[in-house]
Amino acid sequence: MKKIGIIGATGYTGEELLKVLVQHDSVEVDFVTSEKDKDRPLATIYPHLPAYKNKFFISAQQASELSVDLVFLCLPAGESANLAEIFLSKNVKVIDLGADFRFKDPEIYKKWYNMDHATPELLDKAVYGLPEWYREDIKKSNIVGNPGCYPTGVLLAVLPLLKKHLLSDDMIIADSKSGVSGAGKAATSTTHYVNVNENLSPYKAGRTHRHVGEMEQELTKCAGRETRISFTPHLLPVTRGLFSTIYVKTKQQKTKQHILDIMESAYRDEPFVHVVEEGYPSIKMAANTNYCFIGAETVPDSNTVILFSAIDNLGKGASTQAIQNMNLMLGFPETKGLLT
Amino acid sequence: MKKIGIIGATGYTGEELLKVLVQHDSVEVDFVTSEKDKDRPLATIYPHLPAYKNKFFISAQQASELSVDLVFLCLPAGESANLAEIFLSKNVKVIDLGADFRFKDPEIYKKWYNMDHATPELLDKAVYGLPEWYREDIKKSNIVGNPGCYPTGVLLAVLPLLKKHLLSDDMIIADSKSGVSGAGKAATSTTHYVNVNENLSPYKAGRTHRHVGEMEQELTKCAGRETRISFTPHLLPVTRGLFSTIYVKTKQQKTKQHILDIMESAYRDEPFVHVVEEGYPSIKMAANTNYCFIGAETVPDSNTVILFSAIDNLGKGASTQAIQNMNLMLGFPETKGLLT
Amino acid sequence: MKKIGIIGATGYTGEELLKVLVQHDSVEVDFVTSEKDKDRPLATIYPHLPAYKNKFFISAQQASELSVDLVFLCLPAGESANLAEIFLSKNVKVIDLGADFRFKDPEIYKKWYNMDHATPELLDKAVYGLPEWYREDIKKSNIVGNPGCYPTGVLLAVLPLLKKHLLSDDMIIADSKSGVSGAGKAATSTTHYVNVNENLSPYKAGRTHRHVGEMEQELTKCAGRETRISFTPHLLPVTRGLFSTIYVKTKQQKTKQHILDIMESAYRDEPFVHVVEEGYPSIKMAANTNYCFIGAETVPDSNTVILFSAIDNLGKGASTQAIQNMNLMLGFPETKGLLT
Amino acid sequence: MKKIGIIGATGYTGEELLKVLVQHDSVEVDFVTSEKDKDRPLATIYPHLPAYKNKFFISAQQASELSVDLVFLCLPAGESANLAEIFLSKNVKVIDLGADFRFKDPEIYKKWYNMDHATPELLDKAVYGLPEWYREDIKKSNIVGNPGCYPTGVLLAVLPLLKKHLLSDDMIIADSKSGVSGAGKAATSTTHYVNVNENLSPYKAGRTHRHVGEMEQELTKCAGRETRISFTPHLLPVTRGLFSTIYVKTKQQKTKQHILDIMESAYRDEPFVHVVEEGYPSIKMAANTNYCFIGAETVPDSNTVILFSAIDNLGKGASTQAIQNMNLMLGFPETKGLLT
Repeated sequence: MKKIGIIGATGYTGEELLKVLVQHDSVEVDFVTSEKDKDRPLATIYPHLPAYKNKFFISAQQASELSVDLVFLCLPAGESANLAEIFLSKNVKVIDLGADFRFKDPEIYKKWYNMDHATPELLDKAVYGLPEWYREDIKKSNIVGNPGCYPTGVLLAVLPLLKKHLLSDDMIIADSKSGVSGAGKAATSTTHYVNVNENLSPYKAGRTHRHVGEMEQELTKCAGRETRISFTPHLLPVTRGLFSTIYVKTKQQKTKQHILDIMESAYRDEPFVHVVEEGYPSIKMAANTNYCFIGAETVPDSNTVILFSAIDNLGKGASTQAIQNMNLMLGFPETKGLLT
Repeated sequence: MKKIGIIGATGYTGEELLKVLVQHDSVEVDFVTSEKDKDRPLATIYPHLPAYKNKFFISAQQASELSVDLVFLCLPAGESANLAEIFLSKNVKVIDLGADFRFKDPEIYKKWYNMDHATPELLDKAVYGLPEWYREDIKKSNIVGNPGCYPTGVLLAVLPLLKKHLLSDDMIIADSKSGVSGAGKAATSTTHYVNVNENLSPYKAGRTHRHVGEMEQELTKCAGRETRISFTPHLLPVTRGLFSTIYVKTKQQKTKQHILDIMESAYRDEPFVHVVEEGYPSIKMAANTNYCFIGAETVPDSNTVILFSAIDNLGKGASTQAIQNMNLMLGFPETKGLLT
Repeated sequence: MKKIGIIGATGYTGEELLKVLVQHDSVEVDFVTSEKDKDRPLATIYPHLPAYKNKFFISAQQASELSVDLVFLCLPAGESANLAEIFLSKNVKVIDLGADFRFKDPEIYKKWYNMDHATPELLDKAVYGLPEWYREDIKKSNIVGNPGCYPTGVLLAVLPLLKKHLLSDDMIIADSKSGVSGAGKAATSTTHYVNVNENLSPYKAGRTHRHVGEMEQELTKCAGRETRISFTPHLLPVTRGLFSTIYVKTKQQKTKQHILDIMESAYRDEPFVHVVEEGYPSIKMAANTNYCFIGAETVPDSNTVILFSAIDNLGKGASTQAIQNMNLMLGFPETKGLLT
Repeated sequence: MKKIGIIGATGYTGEELLKVLVQHDSVEVDFVTSEKDKDRPLATIYPHLPAYKNKFFISAQQASELSVDLVFLCLPAGESANLAEIFLSKNVKVIDLGADFRFKDPEIYKKWYNMDHATPELLDKAVYGLPEWYREDIKKSNIVGNPGCYPTGVLLAVLPLLKKHLLSDDMIIADSKSGVSGAGKAATSTTHYVNVNENLSPYKAGRTHRHVGEMEQELTKCAGRETRISFTPHLLPVTRGLFSTIYVKTKQQKTKQHILDIMESAYRDEPFVHVVEEGYPSIKMAANTNYCFIGAETVPDSNTVILFSAIDNLGKGASTQAIQNMNLMLGFPETKGLLT
């Protein structure tokens, strides 16, 4: 039985870790932290998670003195770096669900997150936690930067084509639609029920959302040359789920079956990525799971290919992908506690 | 063309007044106030109401120096009383959508709203703005206390039976379900999309919600003796609409048709109250209208009668009922601008 | 007072016509037809529309013998053409909310709707009912083909740029999201609540949806050369509303303000098309109205422009646009009964 | 590893069994049946359940020739009885998720389900599968009638008070609100998205819903005397979840804490029933779990007590309760595969 800790356990990703880990019988949650709920029992915030009813929130400071096998950091950008350094120095493995360890280049981090990285020397050691593309590195790593939700869905769909150099370089357009849990627990005008319900609204369109930097890092790396994306996220009236409709151009005209074959070939042995051959993916398929469902369509008499990707923004887009990474880092079967 | 003003026009009831009054061709909105948005154009808050794009918010102070025919006060309890006095002194008619003019007895107001009434001498002049029961008084009045949303739905269903002395006195139970706009525009944990969506939650159950005081005043008045209600509101995952399922006991066993006949007899000539003979009412019937739909069912071998009432909490439960009152007070046809 | 008739009044577009026309005080609904509900009172189907409670459904056959000023045909493709001919022969003006009179070329109609057009000789007389682009023709016409919902939203956004020859010809991509009322009243697996709620699903992606033919007819006409569109509709978990995110390439790089200025210049005097300068449009702005809200964004260092368009699929995308056309054809003020 | 079969695996309860059993590592699904999808791979219907992608639907006839340890029958009332007899004769344990084995008296079954029971002699052997009240009987039984969703939620809340003889006999009123999955997979006007969304509608109010018979059987048995219930279900715009607000009268006035203490005392050691002391239960707590959350409120100066009960209609109200019963019948830990 391995021990794990969760730093920042009152947000949606921390809550999802708690919920899913109940089913994982090889780890136990040793501590959970919350600065504002320190010393309160979890039951006051999570009456629906009776498995933890005798547990109390502690502070991150208290947690940093405890010894566990692995910690999940569920913190805003800029708050993980120093804590990660402390845990690593005590031989505690670290999975950061925030943005601090997703970038290789501290300048790019600074460009998108508007602050200096506190521990740039750690960036080389950190692995981008997309198991389907970095599995072996993750297994050997002590620190993983868990991908953002939008990048997870978009990259899983685009990388197989990019890696085979099938795409012309003039267009990758991602039109993404995310459930509201992706906007976090803060009560704002944006997350007010009346403003979300019976609505759909785009935000940060073009090349302004922070996840653009992360996507372009990985697209560029895979393509072997500077690669850009136009990205328009939309807020969707659902609690969970993230759907991306992605428009790319292939160098030569392809059939739908050709595209699906490439996807199938890339992911045939993957337990968590599934290619939808009949019809298209939808959010409901992926909600409350660690699965990514991928589909494709072509446009007659054109080189435009449409890719579809459905994940759960809190699942494969955050917490269950983090558990998948944990399984790899701690030597468990990769699917342990995650199959549905 | 009569001139009207709206005090507190950035909440849901003020917005609904603005929206519906676009269709009313005998009044024009002369001013709208907002303390925090003073001097800003309405277009910044209401881009979807182009009819008002050249209008600016003013302060309530500025408004109180202007002359119009009627003002709607859309303010929290305690904030209307003094303003109402000012407008009345200038011969401006007043409809208060808040709670300040719904009570006859300042002690009862104090009991439920936990503050002294600022202008208790005005309470006698104010009429409870339920047109189906106080139409003639409303026509002659300069000040109307527009009923709360829950009382509107519950009273319209219960009063016909109570007035005919058909009810035994040991039980009026109202189980109400309200859309989220009833909780107001404030962004709180309660109104966060993720907490409302795919959920249903009761609140302030028993005899604790402030609308209990208002309902009991009117029930008692109609029955001619002290009458109490058990009231349990629930927050419903819809934007608009309010449904009440009401359990009462009749002195003698009645058939469903008997109950429906009494309702039909009470409301036959009412343009905005309709009795549903086949099936039951539902929220969707009433949403975005000034209608109240009433239905009934009986329980075999028992004196228990179930009443159903569906309204729109922002419509008949607030703003369109206020416009119905305005039509009566200004001498317009009662249905003007309100039919759908 | 003009008399109108509605053929096929039990679908969503017929119901919406009934509902909105209650507020229009210069026309009265003379008859409504339904084959399956013939001889039944409207109250059995529309208890929430008390204005019509004394009306009965008649058959289309019976209707064709009556004389009114204008009929709305709310019928599936292929069922309007012959009826339209009958009404026209009796000097009854016709607005077809279906697809039969949207096309100029019967071959294109056949290609997309898979049947011969029954009255091809009428196509020349019919006007495409997009008032912002064909206003004067509509005023003079006796027969109007009311546009499809997707085409209305997409065309209003794209035509201003196309008309000014600003677009390069290699890409118009429309990623559209529609409310479920767009799928019609038929109870199918697709419209089952459980399959729609908490979901988003694309369908008929690429160039397969029937509205592609209609959009390409109008795009080509405006551009003056063959113009194609890639079109991916998605089913959205809302009842009403239609949002299109449209990706185009300009010949030269443009600023967001430049694009907005072109839109503003195209629609400045239009009562029902509004350009959103701050932020972006959203479905909620347009729901339950005849408005179209248009917005734009640009992608830095690229010629890609993102256009946004929000309408109500049953409003500007169908029934209220039909009433706008009726106002033009019958000589009423264009906005009569439609402002909100 | 025990083998199980699922008869009727294309409805919601069968699908939920499949989904949850993926996490249960002591049973394997040996066969699943569907008459209309016989010989088709599960992947065509359940692309989102990749664990079963190599499995094919067989017919119930084929299944009845196979040998497993336990079968779940997910069939409409009247279709389980004969099949159950066949499986029992082969020493296969049976859990019926339908209504055929919930009643002790075939006359009462006939009264509510309007047909003769096919195997009345089996009723004595069947145990009502509410583990918190019949645990020891379930362990020893070969056939269990899994309770209906409404009865599960209502009984768990009412039985502790009834058993202690605290209730006066003149009123048990249950006002229940159910998610749409409770209405089944059939596409009807009732389950059409547009009719459910932004709506709430009561149905079968009073004493007409079939679950009344089942509730009254258990209430009467527990009370030791004829006990009736007034029951009004409402269709709620959520996919999953069932909330009951229950009004009872106690013989003597009680405090809220007294009521909660009785609940706590009844369920202290129960893994799946939890008493909410602060605030009230809500649907979201229980959705996607096997938990029941119970709360209470009292009405000042009255003997009326309000009970709250929240479950997932497909979870504790159907499939996960069936798995809880399976765990008991097969000798596994009761919570195996079910904790969240």
